[in-house]
Amino acid sequence: MEPRQDRSRATRERLLESAVTLLSETGWTNTTVTTVAAHAGVSRGATQHHFPTRDDLFTAAIEYMTVARVDELKTTLAAHSDGPAPVRDVLESIVGLYTGPLFKAALQVWTAAAVDPVVREHIIPLEQTVAREAFRLASTLLNINRENPRLRAIVAATLDLGRGLGLANILTDDAGRRTWVLDAWSAELEAIIAAESPTP
Amino acid sequence: MEPRQDRSRATRERLLESAVTLLSETGWTNTTVTTVAAHAGVSRGATQHHFPTRDDLFTAAIEYMTVARVDELKTTLAAHSDGPAPVRDVLESIVGLYTGPLFKAALQVWTAAAVDPVVREHIIPLEQTVAREAFRLASTLLNINRENPRLRAIVAATLDLGRGLGLANILTDDAGRRTWVLDAWSAELEAIIAAESPTP
Repeated sequence: MEPRQDRSRATRERLLESAVTLLSETGWTNTTVTTVAAHAGVSRGATQHHFPTRDDLFTAAIEYMTVARVDELKTTLAAHSDGPAPVRDVLESIVGLYTGPLFKAALQVWTAAAVDPVVREHIIPLEQTVAREAFRLASTLLNINRENPRLRAIVAATLDLGRGLGLANILTDDAGRRTWVLDAWSAELEAIIAAESPTP
Repeated sequence: MEPRQDRSRATRERLLESAVTLLSETGWTNTTVTTVAAHAGVSRGATQHHFPTRDDLFTAAIEYMTVARVDELKTTLAAHSDGPAPVRDVLESIVGLYTGPLFKAALQVWTAAAVDPVVREHIIPLEQTVAREAFRLASTLLNINRENPRLRAIVAATLDLGRGLGLANILTDDAGRRTWVLDAWSAELEAIIAAESPTP
């Protein structure tokens, strides 16, 4: 690849990273082509070459976030490829997906989408991809039999619990209470998995 | 009370109800003194008498929503005052708190507060009141011993699950999946409560 293309791709990436940062820190309404260009240190002209309109920038940023969230899932999975992880560690990984800047940026997008059908139609299929990957991650890390209906449903509930804990963390640092809830849930989840495992 | 005061109070109430409706349907940014006045059918002058600034309107609307959410909890509690309710019914009541218009309006406020320290400082104590009341509601309806640490934590987890299910319902109607998750959670919760109950 030519250096010019490399540079162009790096610029695009920097703009998208700035868009995610500004979404999580300043919200949907305050994130504009102008603020993103300034945050990324990219000229207005170069920014408009990549993203002629706010819609273009947001469409790309939402896809970029989706890819980043799925990549985060795959990285977590690869880090535990040597066998099943302790349940408490898996819960920490799952909840990490809902407490970082990507979740905070995504929450701004969802809230905008809740009142804007155009944004909504665009992100629904992307969110379905993330949900599928999150389920795959959780069930693989927990090493459960995905044909077992009790375990399937309880893994889904664990992801919903993680999302709820993420939302509770938006206004205040909820880490202490979250540890308490996850310690307790970990014990229950371990018992459920053990009860459903065929005895050797 | 004089009719004029009654009328004034009714007007204020109508404005606050419109503010909540518009927050849930159009979002934080699109909800203004002008749109609220128009939705409530109240003149600009009368609206400004009650709420001179957008800040005044929002402060009052957030407090109004908090009171409404706590009232919703108390109504649910009163409806079950004749004894402990079936676990699955309690879960339905809890999740109802996170899937209605008040939750959707609150989500818009939280998302605005996530990026605005002034809004955040204002709503944190109000949210703590709602959280305390929700915990009291859930533990009373489930008729659990609140001194039991395992039960305390699982009730807290159940509320976090409810919040996560509410968030999952923002973009699409998630009712089918939610029923499946709640059926499974209900079975686990029943077993945990039974295991911790002193045998008579």
